[in-house]
Amino acid sequence: MTKKRIFSGMQPSGKFHMGNFQVLNNWVKLQHEYDCIYSIVDWHALTSSYEDTRLLPERIECMALDWLSAGLDPEKNIIFVQSHVKEHAELHLLLSMMTPLSWLERVPTYKDKLQQLGDMGKEINTYGFLGYPELQTADIILYKANAVPVAEDQLPHLELAREIVRRFANLYKPVFPEPQPILSPLLPGIDGRKMSKSYGNEIPYAAEPDELQAKVRQMLTDPQRVKKTDPGNPEICTVYTFHKIFSPDYEEIAGQCRNAGIGCVECKKRLAAKMTTTLADVHGRRKELAGNPAKIKEILVYGAERARKLAAATMAEVRAVMNLD
Amino acid sequence: MTKKRIFSGMQPSGKFHMGNFQVLNNWVKLQHEYDCIYSIVDWHALTSSYEDTRLLPERIECMALDWLSAGLDPEKNIIFVQSHVKEHAELHLLLSMMTPLSWLERVPTYKDKLQQLGDMGKEINTYGFLGYPELQTADIILYKANAVPVAEDQLPHLELAREIVRRFANLYKPVFPEPQPILSPLLPGIDGRKMSKSYGNEIPYAAEPDELQAKVRQMLTDPQRVKKTDPGNPEICTVYTFHKIFSPDYEEIAGQCRNAGIGCVECKKRLAAKMTTTLADVHGRRKELAGNPAKIKEILVYGAERARKLAAATMAEVRAVMNLD
Repeated sequence: MTKKRIFSGMQPSGKFHMGNFQVLNNWVKLQHEYDCIYSIVDWHALTSSYEDTRLLPERIECMALDWLSAGLDPEKNIIFVQSHVKEHAELHLLLSMMTPLSWLERVPTYKDKLQQLGDMGKEINTYGFLGYPELQTADIILYKANAVPVAEDQLPHLELAREIVRRFANLYKPVFPEPQPILSPLLPGIDGRKMSKSYGNEIPYAAEPDELQAKVRQMLTDPQRVKKTDPGNPEICTVYTFHKIFSPDYEEIAGQCRNAGIGCVECKKRLAAKMTTTLADVHGRRKELAGNPAKIKEILVYGAERARKLAAATMAEVRAVMNLD
Repeated sequence: MTKKRIFSGMQPSGKFHMGNFQVLNNWVKLQHEYDCIYSIVDWHALTSSYEDTRLLPERIECMALDWLSAGLDPEKNIIFVQSHVKEHAELHLLLSMMTPLSWLERVPTYKDKLQQLGDMGKEINTYGFLGYPELQTADIILYKANAVPVAEDQLPHLELAREIVRRFANLYKPVFPEPQPILSPLLPGIDGRKMSKSYGNEIPYAAEPDELQAKVRQMLTDPQRVKKTDPGNPEICTVYTFHKIFSPDYEEIAGQCRNAGIGCVECKKRLAAKMTTTLADVHGRRKELAGNPAKIKEILVYGAERARKLAAATMAEVRAVMNLD
């Protein structure tokens, strides 16, 4: 039996923190179960930063470094830059012809993000920004992906993708599977809210051990647990959310918290140590790779070649059923 | 000095009448003065007929036949099918990122056509339909066209193209010239209004001499000229508008009309004869070409190759100034 196929992408926005690292961490796990296609979606980055693209090449290279050092295997997965595979633009255009404007206008993140970025003084009320989820749909279905690892706030985008897939099948012929979500746990910020630079609650990905310890020390714990002897509730503790990701013995830690066998200070020390070890490995690999930009380039060229083959096959089918060949 | 470059396109909508023939006629004249790139814009045809594309291949071939038999030289001009040159989709996507939504929403033809086609029961309120003038802009500037032969109702589209060109230059670097209009005379329908199948006032392109005579007989003339001995005003006479296109001696005819030297019946007879001769030539060439579909295909493949070379050169520049290479 062939493995199911996954597609996912990340914008090379130049912002990379532990929250993004956790998404990557999840991708690394998925690479064993699925055929994975991971794309650095530079065209998407234009939706919110078309006004200044000078840092884009550097950010793309940086993202490739992050991905590879986190453990994504460029042989096992197809790793490539979106703009290297022009079929994304062609499919986007074809899908645009059959996508009701209202489907895009009602995507919940659309008005929110428009407002949010508008408040930051960004002029992003463009045609391309409205088409963002359309391009995302093209990205996913171009590879006939069966599933997409997403966070909860991306579910409406995936629902739209499935709607477009169904509409395409009704108008022409079924060509694409309906992509299903694989809900991925997200790391919160140190205050328990969504990790975001704008909240000032993020843990930098490149944090040195000292900074890491300081960040972990500031993490919100169970507010009911005042003294070390009070039993704690790990389910509402940010530190525990991180343990679940970084500490293989997290269940034991939960038990010790519940029966007051471990204090918060000690618990945080253990977490900082685990995170330091994990990151030290990653940072080591990253440093090594960073010295070899030619290697990175080669990996991205190789990935684009493989992606292009799949994309070309899909587009041949699409053109045929749309009578465009 | 190199010639200036022209781009223009037509949708393979399957409707071809003398009004379209006149546009072609104009293109044929322009091919001597300019470097011309003429495209059968099949992707555009999807904006209003994505729901049924079965006739598209036939319509594309038919349009190529019409163009070639009207006298467009495939060596002198680049003649190609839009969807054969994928760079149109890529540039469209890139331009979409920097085009304010409001610029597209305010294009005067947008709401009009939406209403008009909606009344005909067509569901075309799609993302792609809104992006129609964006794709048109991409079509034109991809070839760095200096000018576009247009009818008056297309002027706002060309104004939008110039706005996008200026915005691109401000954001990145000047890459594209601002395309200027070459206003082309249009043939009216036999009742003097715009020629359109929906008005029932069109002259079919394939009309046989009998049908042609009948159509010319019905043409609206100067309503003040009741008797043959009344002097006429050719400037408000539909027959004269046609003479200007089909009769090299049209100035003489105008003089005879003004001094009542020729009656309307005779004047119409002369026009029908001229049109019959012109069309007989064109129809003859068309019949000959229609027997050789391989030749048509070869011409379109050749045209796409030449178009692609120009398009690739432009896109290399675009990617460079946008830091996407």
